[in-house]
Amino acid sequence: MAIKLVTTAAELRAESARLLLEKRGSSQGLVPTMGALHSGHAALARAAVEQNDVVVASIFVNPLQFGEAADLDRYPRTLEADMALLDAEGVDLVFAPSVEEVYPGGEPLVRVTSGPLGEKWEGASRPGHFDGALTVVAKLLHYGLPGGPAFDGGAAAYRAYFGQKDAQQLALVKRMVSDLNFPVDIVAVPTVRSEEGLALSSRNRFLSEAEQDAALVLSRALRLLESRALAREPLDLDSAVALVESQPLVRLDYFDVVDPGTLEPLAENCQDTPFRGEGLAIIAAKVGPVRLIDNLPLSS
Amino acid sequence: MAIKLVTTAAELRAESARLLLEKRGSSQGLVPTMGALHSGHAALARAAVEQNDVVVASIFVNPLQFGEAADLDRYPRTLEADMALLDAEGVDLVFAPSVEEVYPGGEPLVRVTSGPLGEKWEGASRPGHFDGALTVVAKLLHYGLPGGPAFDGGAAAYRAYFGQKDAQQLALVKRMVSDLNFPVDIVAVPTVRSEEGLALSSRNRFLSEAEQDAALVLSRALRLLESRALAREPLDLDSAVALVESQPLVRLDYFDVVDPGTLEPLAENCQDTPFRGEGLAIIAAKVGPVRLIDNLPLSS
Repeated sequence: MAIKLVTTAAELRAESARLLLEKRGSSQGLVPTMGALHSGHAALARAAVEQNDVVVASIFVNPLQFGEAADLDRYPRTLEADMALLDAEGVDLVFAPSVEEVYPGGEPLVRVTSGPLGEKWEGASRPGHFDGALTVVAKLLHYGLPGGPAFDGGAAAYRAYFGQKDAQQLALVKRMVSDLNFPVDIVAVPTVRSEEGLALSSRNRFLSEAEQDAALVLSRALRLLESRALAREPLDLDSAVALVESQPLVRLDYFDVVDPGTLEPLAENCQDTPFRGEGLAIIAAKVGPVRLIDNLPLSS
Repeated sequence: MAIKLVTTAAELRAESARLLLEKRGSSQGLVPTMGALHSGHAALARAAVEQNDVVVASIFVNPLQFGEAADLDRYPRTLEADMALLDAEGVDLVFAPSVEEVYPGGEPLVRVTSGPLGEKWEGASRPGHFDGALTVVAKLLHYGLPGGPAFDGGAAAYRAYFGQKDAQQLALVKRMVSDLNFPVDIVAVPTVRSEEGLALSSRNRFLSEAEQDAALVLSRALRLLESRALAREPLDLDSAVALVESQPLVRLDYFDVVDPGTLEPLAENCQDTPFRGEGLAIIAAKVGPVRLIDNLPLSS
């Protein structure tokens, strides 16, 4: 494998500077992950490799964003397979720090707080989750800064890649970057799906075959809204909700159409009048033991 | 004047890159201020100019860290005099953005939160103050990043300068930088005092002559502890408190000896046993209409 593993921030900085020089590069991409990689992550890596001279993927299961210790312990760790996948996509460096490297003094005292945007939707069922996620993303964005200048003499461009699948995380990371002026461009990469339409997630492995079939109703309901939006018909959200609720293995948590930036519901556009503008259909449901989320941008 | 004024982040980035190239420099210093500059700020600028090839001072009165709007409106704004002072110290660039430039979408949703370290001492009488201060310092540290590479081909070094006078702010900024891995070295600059010992502050202008005299008891009490620490005597904090309280124009808020990093009181070392180790004596008091703070590092 050509890919190189580094485990400390100092090594990452030195290696990325060396690679920028060696490749005569002028841009660096960061792909933050928690490992257990699948084709969705491969798409992030591919986009980063296409757009940057040097690409770093980080693998870190962040204790700060897990509510329960059991959930953290159960999270799959598959470093060798992850490195092979990233190597196949052309990623240069894997940064896989220990918890001790990331939090040398124990839990951080000073943190990033996600505010009201982090309290709704996924935040409502996972208190503190987005504060923990943004705090580690802030650290990772700093770790991943280009370690050297661009070969052409300017400052190297810097981009970080996040999946559209985690729409609320993406909205919050974009908001953090603009609210706190991080020197990075956030690139959103479209959700990767199975042939049948199920959004890829490391949690899908916990679904039985029957549950996998049942879970398809989520993407089917999102596609229904998408087709109505494209046809400039009323979205008739109620009927889409009814479709999901007709599936007995699925317990719906929320299903709504929101502003993609603020995640506020677009009430007036969702039921009886023809849809106009931009929206994001978001859905969350429990299927068997697993909580699934999915979303689809709407435009008309 | 050789100093140049910029008001947008884009101009700052471009100008600092140009200066690094023009000066064949390899380091950049940032001196964040709220204007109304005095000799204390001059000492920050001087340290930055001594240690860096390019130096930026920012002047921004941050609405986020003021509890009351009246306090914000009353804050002195003296841009021309400030620029003359910074020019005399050899600062290259003044970054004086508008509130609109710093907060284009209104108040930020995603913020930095200072945690328990921001709730004690000064934080106890100014709820939210340090969250607001850290949020704008996070933004300023990003704004002030070197806009170009070092002339010698590596990444430019980056340092930011804060006064020891605001000991809690300094401790929190250091903690933010390590907890969130900002790519900057924080340099603490010793407090500048009047000949009689009063720590310089933009608030001192609001003291009458009698109040200025009375305020000297703060530094006198700190010096008393310092001399006892140097002599390896018991600090006898109670007698130092009594000294301050003997001054009728001074209403003491707090006076304690704390760990310089955590700001936790060093109880066992402050009264009857000889002082050993490192500590920070901190004091806050109201003198006439003005709240004053001061501190002195102790070591033995």
